[in-house]
Amino acid sequence: MKLLDLYAKMKGDLNGIEKELERSVRDEHALLSETSVHLLKAGGKRIRPVFVLLAGKFGDYKLDVLKKVAVPLELIHMASLVHDDVIDDADTRRGQPTVKSKWDNRIAMYTGDYIHGRALSVAAELKDPFVHQVLSSALVQMCIGEMEQIRDFFNTDQSVRNYLLRIRRKTALLIAISCQLGAVAAGAERKTANQLYRFGYNVGMAFQIRDDLLDLYGTEKAIGKPPGSDMRQGNITLPVILALRDEGIRESLLHEIAAIRQQGLYADASRAIGLIKNSVGGSLADELANRYIAKALHALQQLPAIPARKNLMDIAHFVGKRNY
Amino acid sequence: MKLLDLYAKMKGDLNGIEKELERSVRDEHALLSETSVHLLKAGGKRIRPVFVLLAGKFGDYKLDVLKKVAVPLELIHMASLVHDDVIDDADTRRGQPTVKSKWDNRIAMYTGDYIHGRALSVAAELKDPFVHQVLSSALVQMCIGEMEQIRDFFNTDQSVRNYLLRIRRKTALLIAISCQLGAVAAGAERKTANQLYRFGYNVGMAFQIRDDLLDLYGTEKAIGKPPGSDMRQGNITLPVILALRDEGIRESLLHEIAAIRQQGLYADASRAIGLIKNSVGGSLADELANRYIAKALHALQQLPAIPARKNLMDIAHFVGKRNY
Repeated sequence: MKLLDLYAKMKGDLNGIEKELERSVRDEHALLSETSVHLLKAGGKRIRPVFVLLAGKFGDYKLDVLKKVAVPLELIHMASLVHDDVIDDADTRRGQPTVKSKWDNRIAMYTGDYIHGRALSVAAELKDPFVHQVLSSALVQMCIGEMEQIRDFFNTDQSVRNYLLRIRRKTALLIAISCQLGAVAAGAERKTANQLYRFGYNVGMAFQIRDDLLDLYGTEKAIGKPPGSDMRQGNITLPVILALRDEGIRESLLHEIAAIRQQGLYADASRAIGLIKNSVGGSLADELANRYIAKALHALQQLPAIPARKNLMDIAHFVGKRNY
Repeated sequence: MKLLDLYAKMKGDLNGIEKELERSVRDEHALLSETSVHLLKAGGKRIRPVFVLLAGKFGDYKLDVLKKVAVPLELIHMASLVHDDVIDDADTRRGQPTVKSKWDNRIAMYTGDYIHGRALSVAAELKDPFVHQVLSSALVQMCIGEMEQIRDFFNTDQSVRNYLLRIRRKTALLIAISCQLGAVAAGAERKTANQLYRFGYNVGMAFQIRDDLLDLYGTEKAIGKPPGSDMRQGNITLPVILALRDEGIRESLLHEIAAIRQQGLYADASRAIGLIKNSVGGSLADELANRYIAKALHALQQLPAIPARKNLMDIAHFVGKRNY
């Protein structure tokens, strides 16, 4: 099944999530409602809710219960985006003005805090303390990931392991627990929930590697901004780390990265990108993404062959595809 | 009993809380540990833990359980301070450099997020979903309070009701739930917990009004910064709102506030303060603080006459005292 068909099939339940998302952030306080709804309307693929719902199919599927997990996870993701935009000084995201540019940094900061609070309020409607433990520990790990990203800005000596740990915290963990908690909320067996965690973790890793590749190999039209924005921000991603290992281009690439650092957010990254494209960085990163997808598919094979399993496979294949 | 004697008496248990606070924010991630421990070491009166412990005396007092409530409450308070310092562009707090000045705004933002996450992780060790509901809803209300403060910056037309609602969210609520959850965690009766909530709420309101009075009436030595810093930031507090009702000085005071607004964070507020001192603003605010203290004491009278009740009375009297 194509991904669009999957979304079409899940439309009813995803609309239910969408309504709950909006309800959860609406408040008598006009400005906070406005900034939060602005964020919601800016869209997104709602991939975390999709994972929650599909994982829920492995147990006793009840939308009303699954909502209470899907909404906090999507809200936590949204809150991290508002705070990221403050850090990155980003004016647009997905083609829409960011909260920090439409209002200001202070309002973006409190909007993020507010959405965090709302996320936890919704989750608190569930009685299972395990859900709270998993959510709060994910919040902590995500902050550590963000701090590591700041610490490693323009660090051209970082290891692949460093990068993998960082994207695990920044991206893969939240996708992993979306799958896990969907199953837990549906009362699925612990073994099933763990297997789904493994699936989500591996898909999340592949997803972030693909996203980092897209930022270098994609066209401006596909990305919505000039390629190389990670590098301009100082975020040294996997293809760059791998390209730097290539003795033939290492010195020139280091030189280009230093120049980008000096020029700041509007630097021209095209020469650096050209060097990376001439290295094996891209294809090695590609290979690693494929390995994560293979692991994700392997995790699925341990699960009962219900239609949701096929849907998760399709998503994994979609994430695995080169998107540039 | 004097407050210092009370702290001396509670020293053992407060040390236990202190250790748990430090343990809760320590992490393999060096920078986050460093910023969080820096915050912890900057001190504070730990008034929220004191309230939790004293409220716990109305039930089955177990430090190990009460810790799991006291630590999140103090951490939530600390997280709000780090984020406030970003908003207020504050370089020092309690005479110590702030995280945002010692490191930077980005690191302060994630330190706040991280401490939030840690607070919820500790609370998640408790099984009672009521605790999670109360904590997450307090987080939401505190953000709304902060946003209201931003919205009302330099709004000289705001009502007393507006101000009271704001400080309720910003300050009183967290103190109220410290008292409430201490009792809940100790398994005290719901009625007792509610009465303690009422006590904490009224003490919290009085505390914030006194603090706002101190900012205008205190000496630079007592406050640690030149008087009037609220006004310089645009935070229009109760004595100012009440002074503005005095037709004899209203126009001159409006003029001074407009001038302060134009001059920014280093403005000279002494003429505005002089005008307020010549009005009934201060004494009316004073009276209102006393009324809250009376209500707090009244709430205590409904509770069993154990020593902790006397300790809470002493704290209320201390908060009620003019500190300028």
